[in-house]
Amino acid sequence: MVNKELIMLPGPTNVPERVLYAMIQPMISHRGAEFHKIYSEIEDNLKYVFQTENDVFVLSSSGTGGVECVVSNLVNRGEKVIVPIFGVFSKRLAEAVRRRGGIPVEVDLPLGTTPKSHHIKEVVEREADAKAVFIVYNETSTGVVVRELPDIVKIAKEKNMLTVVDAVSALGGDKLPVDEWEVDICMAGSQKCLACPPGLSMISVKQNAWEKIEKTENKPFYFDLTLMREYAAKKETPFTPAIPLFYALNEALKMMREEGLERSIERHKRCAEAFYSAIEAYGMTIYPKEKETRSNTVIAVNIPEKVDDSLVRRIMQDKYKVVIGGGMDKLKGKIFRIGNMGKVTLAEVVMTLSALGNALKDVGCHVNIEAGLEAAIKVFDH
Amino acid sequence: MVNKELIMLPGPTNVPERVLYAMIQPMISHRGAEFHKIYSEIEDNLKYVFQTENDVFVLSSSGTGGVECVVSNLVNRGEKVIVPIFGVFSKRLAEAVRRRGGIPVEVDLPLGTTPKSHHIKEVVEREADAKAVFIVYNETSTGVVVRELPDIVKIAKEKNMLTVVDAVSALGGDKLPVDEWEVDICMAGSQKCLACPPGLSMISVKQNAWEKIEKTENKPFYFDLTLMREYAAKKETPFTPAIPLFYALNEALKMMREEGLERSIERHKRCAEAFYSAIEAYGMTIYPKEKETRSNTVIAVNIPEKVDDSLVRRIMQDKYKVVIGGGMDKLKGKIFRIGNMGKVTLAEVVMTLSALGNALKDVGCHVNIEAGLEAAIKVFDH
Repeated sequence: MVNKELIMLPGPTNVPERVLYAMIQPMISHRGAEFHKIYSEIEDNLKYVFQTENDVFVLSSSGTGGVECVVSNLVNRGEKVIVPIFGVFSKRLAEAVRRRGGIPVEVDLPLGTTPKSHHIKEVVEREADAKAVFIVYNETSTGVVVRELPDIVKIAKEKNMLTVVDAVSALGGDKLPVDEWEVDICMAGSQKCLACPPGLSMISVKQNAWEKIEKTENKPFYFDLTLMREYAAKKETPFTPAIPLFYALNEALKMMREEGLERSIERHKRCAEAFYSAIEAYGMTIYPKEKETRSNTVIAVNIPEKVDDSLVRRIMQDKYKVVIGGGMDKLKGKIFRIGNMGKVTLAEVVMTLSALGNALKDVGCHVNIEAGLEAAIKVFDH
Repeated sequence: MVNKELIMLPGPTNVPERVLYAMIQPMISHRGAEFHKIYSEIEDNLKYVFQTENDVFVLSSSGTGGVECVVSNLVNRGEKVIVPIFGVFSKRLAEAVRRRGGIPVEVDLPLGTTPKSHHIKEVVEREADAKAVFIVYNETSTGVVVRELPDIVKIAKEKNMLTVVDAVSALGGDKLPVDEWEVDICMAGSQKCLACPPGLSMISVKQNAWEKIEKTENKPFYFDLTLMREYAAKKETPFTPAIPLFYALNEALKMMREEGLERSIERHKRCAEAFYSAIEAYGMTIYPKEKETRSNTVIAVNIPEKVDDSLVRRIMQDKYKVVIGGGMDKLKGKIFRIGNMGKVTLAEVVMTLSALGNALKDVGCHVNIEAGLEAAIKVFDH
């Protein structure tokens, strides 16, 4: 085959050649002028993508490292934080708090739904001594997005609680104006909508979060945000950064700037709509219970009865060269997850849908491929 | 200039094109067969480089992240560990222990010297309740190596204490047979003697260390070694790995295997000898106090009186295109640090010495360049 496989996973995503090739540059000193320049460019463009004037940092770690960083800079032993639980990644947030010695006040919600502002209102009133609300914005494991996030931040703020948002799988692919929504801390990952390779996480920190962070005891060393702030003043990282990934991120952010954040979000949204229309035209059903909470970036689809998840995905990969994800944890074997992130366009949507439809046919589950593809393409026509 | 700058920093080092270009491969699923193959190859070759049958892991973080991982998997609140202090990186070890809530029993040694077995014997006897000895094998900040490490491990073992070795700047460039010396935990970094880009750390864990780790409370999430062991069984990492750096590490380890570990160490040693001979022929002095503890991988040289450190290094970089390091912390402005790591040969040694000699001349500090280069080349002749 001439082309490489099309990676439609919920991260990592396909990386454009411009970004890949940016890594092929000689090593430099991470304490020298060349690195300072790269750092400054990344910082500027990250502020653009986060839509913030807050401090922003890049960590040499994957998204979960970013989560661990925030938890261990903010949570003291015995402190409560509120964590709505509605999938694997929100569970991980709670787990990170627990391991830190904090007390996650878990708000359990049915899988496939999202926390609403009334859930949060009720719990912040009951748990008035909680320090913060830790919330996953886009649950990669169930394909939902928390559309009421702006209200949730307001409710937390009224009770003097911080809001910490895990936006790992959303930043650049869905709306998240950090300053406008007054998000105190926001975390993102390199390998999702920015179409950069995995290995970096990015964090924004607002002034009122700094006031809490400065008072946190037993902060870690590698993940110490105050140390990162100190070094950021000279456009450096406290410890040796993953230089090739910084080269890649710099290029990926430049591409995002060239396209424009709004256009990037609009493109993700349109591709998502095309996926959802086509899936329904296939006669299949979408996993999230409420239409308005369907994610822009992760398309979660119920697997038709008697269809073997791993067989279908194997055929998609081996025969049609398209890779999608399966369900995680309790949803294993129950849903497909299509990553709709990064440089996705009509072409990738159609290739993926066609591979899915054909693989389903191959296992004896007939879907109306023509109707599905037509529905997808139509979304791009208006 | 045709050539890029020659990076003779104590990490990152020059990365061979084979390793750089290995990063230009499409993204893959980190839960799929292709990644499993890469993981297995890396695991095999890491065991070869560590000379161990112990479990080995690769973390998507820099060397300091590896240190933080080990500290937070091993040290409970209020537990003592012994840490000989003889430079910036041993101080960092103690700081990581302190931040974790542990008690570092610091053994202060003069800068430029190394801990000897009698220092450790005295302190393990006095502090019988300490859990482990945490020791930097090769102090990157002062250019020394702990030649008595095998004895130190034995002394700790007699008192039932673990030995944790920070070998970030030594592995592959100096002797460190983990199993033969019975090192319980050993940490290394990608960007030093393996000539890989920065961004990964590697850790080996022996069975008796596992017994302690399993009992540690409040282990972190991103850095949980037991979770890494669980995923290693299926040749995966718990969280999304920095895929391009895994490609690079795999290639770098293959190159190490092709050369052979012993030959790599021998090459580093010979280049170091050439540096030391030449520096002395220049009429300059070596920073480490004792000849037998001079590092194979970091050449620390006293800056002649009245010579401006940053001016010399600027001239070396701008005019002669060779980058070396300066002193850290208390040694800032007092020593040069030449990284002698990765794919160094006679050619790089001579280029670096020539650039150093000429830059010194440019600032009015005359050294006998011819005698120095002759002394260096002679080391390669026998």
